[in-house]
Amino acid sequence: MVIYLDNNATTQVDPKVLEAMLPYLSELYGNPSSMHSFGGQVGSAVQEARAKVAALLGAEDTEIIFNSCGSEGNNTAIHAALAAQPEKRHIVTTAVEHPAILNVCKHLEKKGYTVTYLSVDRRGQLDLMEVEAAMTGGTALVTTLYANNETGVIFPVEQIGAIAKEYGATFHVDAVQAAGKVTINLQTSTIDLLTISGHKLHAPKGIGALYVRRGFRFRPFLLGGHQERGRRAGTQNVPGIVALGKAAELAHQHQQDVEHERRLRDLLEKQLLERIPDCEVNGGGSKRLPNTTNIGFKYIEGEAILFMLNQYGICASSGSACTSGSLDPSHVLMAMGLPYTILHGSIRFSLSRFTTEDEIQQVLAVMPGIVEKLRALSPFNNDESDWLQSRDLVSA
Amino acid sequence: MVIYLDNNATTQVDPKVLEAMLPYLSELYGNPSSMHSFGGQVGSAVQEARAKVAALLGAEDTEIIFNSCGSEGNNTAIHAALAAQPEKRHIVTTAVEHPAILNVCKHLEKKGYTVTYLSVDRRGQLDLMEVEAAMTGGTALVTTLYANNETGVIFPVEQIGAIAKEYGATFHVDAVQAAGKVTINLQTSTIDLLTISGHKLHAPKGIGALYVRRGFRFRPFLLGGHQERGRRAGTQNVPGIVALGKAAELAHQHQQDVEHERRLRDLLEKQLLERIPDCEVNGGGSKRLPNTTNIGFKYIEGEAILFMLNQYGICASSGSACTSGSLDPSHVLMAMGLPYTILHGSIRFSLSRFTTEDEIQQVLAVMPGIVEKLRALSPFNNDESDWLQSRDLVSA
Repeated sequence: MVIYLDNNATTQVDPKVLEAMLPYLSELYGNPSSMHSFGGQVGSAVQEARAKVAALLGAEDTEIIFNSCGSEGNNTAIHAALAAQPEKRHIVTTAVEHPAILNVCKHLEKKGYTVTYLSVDRRGQLDLMEVEAAMTGGTALVTTLYANNETGVIFPVEQIGAIAKEYGATFHVDAVQAAGKVTINLQTSTIDLLTISGHKLHAPKGIGALYVRRGFRFRPFLLGGHQERGRRAGTQNVPGIVALGKAAELAHQHQQDVEHERRLRDLLEKQLLERIPDCEVNGGGSKRLPNTTNIGFKYIEGEAILFMLNQYGICASSGSACTSGSLDPSHVLMAMGLPYTILHGSIRFSLSRFTTEDEIQQVLAVMPGIVEKLRALSPFNNDESDWLQSRDLVSA
Repeated sequence: MVIYLDNNATTQVDPKVLEAMLPYLSELYGNPSSMHSFGGQVGSAVQEARAKVAALLGAEDTEIIFNSCGSEGNNTAIHAALAAQPEKRHIVTTAVEHPAILNVCKHLEKKGYTVTYLSVDRRGQLDLMEVEAAMTGGTALVTTLYANNETGVIFPVEQIGAIAKEYGATFHVDAVQAAGKVTINLQTSTIDLLTISGHKLHAPKGIGALYVRRGFRFRPFLLGGHQERGRRAGTQNVPGIVALGKAAELAHQHQQDVEHERRLRDLLEKQLLERIPDCEVNGGGSKRLPNTTNIGFKYIEGEAILFMLNQYGICASSGSACTSGSLDPSHVLMAMGLPYTILHGSIRFSLSRFTTEDEIQQVLAVMPGIVEKLRALSPFNNDESDWLQSRDLVSA
């Protein structure tokens, strides 16, 4: 049996979600764009799903565009914001965004756009004064995470959005990790565009949605057919859409799941800190997602911890799955200015509503031994001279 | 019970495909980009699926990039071709392409690109001399359908490709309708980029693939994480990918299914022409897909035929699902220069390996009565003065 504490990478499809989508993978296979009633009945399922996703976000049905994933949502949002105000060539974002924001921004810099990457402090927090200082009359877009995928740190999006609005910039929020874990109400919000992804909230991979505020002058990214009211070409992924609708409904109905996750996360975090010396919670001083803890175990390598956890059937992560395999330390933890020894020894545990207390106890039972064993082998152990600042190292 | 003859719009998920993908919608939910072995085992399923899709196309595994749909494939291909030769600003395509090509081309025209839309003749065929005449040293891309979604007419892609190569242009083929129905061998081909879509060959909606010839200087369209070897960002749609792999394997193994479809299609076509006066096969003189027949019933409205067929539980189409709901006649049939009365009275029947002879007989049993009834009501009936050329009408 696997103990799966990597829910910020992807989540289990909820059995109720699978049950809801299965008819659309078998007998109800029509194309919602077809004229016949066999296709039409599928179309009504798409509309029901749209209403459920809208309800989770406090949005209107027509403000939801289904797409294939969070990365597509983020690419589309940036594209749409720049197309809406083509005369403006400046973007404000942060150094701790997902690669689907950062790599689009890097690409745009090559094409003549200017991008400001705001830094964060040791707790992973933005300085709102810096946001304000970065803004110009030429800022087309402010794009930030709602909550960081690695640390769970939550940004004050409405305060950031208020600044964006002041300067006439579009405000996009990547809420891939936040949706379903924190209450989002877009009806009373400064957010123009917001990205969510199904597989982060117990729907399958391959489905996502972009919220587009009513009245926003949206330009599609994928061109072609008239699907999604001309805003996203391509035959609609009906089973995925129905699944995302059901997942949104479950997340919306079960706010107590969040408290369950928070209780177990707090238990895990508190006990790890008590039982293991020389470790700390990255972003611990900040408001965070209820399901995420990112802990730095000094003097050892995160990859080695993961390897040993894996042998116990425990799944965790040392950063974003979207950058895994890379030997570079996490860009998020680097941006927080963490010391070298923490940077390399940090592990993210991310829980879900399916996580049990027994699973947490099993992790607590093995972690102290793993850390002790690795530290005994570590050349860095107790060598205070290696407490170098990561930024110095990285810039070298 | 529905008689589903709209398989060019979308197909039933093969029960074997559903069976293959189900584990990845339940217990095997890991992220293939994760470091732990729970994610890793999912990654190997992705690689197996890639090999199966490559085998269907006579390609190498590394030449297959999974994405979300045919429209994404087409958008990506055009983007990649223009990025590969940024100094060239001319595109050659045809007037009968899918909207996911035509609407991208229209968008590019606004951005300063020049696009040549080649016409087709009454049989839906291109003139290769016109292809050659359209080419210039500044042609970045030639993009054509492999087989037309509305008529099934097959283009001589290798001959078109040879011309493209002569002028140093990238050659992209939209094989969404052709894959699995005709033998494609990309190893001995002039094709650089080729689009396929899962839901047209009994995999679910929401998954597609783009073939990119080895050595082609590819630039990704969706930017972000390193998935698909840095060529398509976004968490991989593992269940969809596994499904597409299985669907490709089934299509590859079961060439006799194609003969089954051809036999039933020929039966339907021949009998309709025998039993109903004043109708003809659109593109009938051309090499066509084995599953498709598009028949013009003179003097009546296709929408009315569809409506009546629908009452018998028979699903067919009057054009592409991606343009349905529009009152304009099919751009494909218009480009073929069909007379007005045929343009508006054309119906596409598209079969699959699940189509039975009994279903075809049921269609044959009701169609003559439907046509007769509608013609009795039609103001156009027997009025030869209405045999106007569609082009005159449309340009008016």
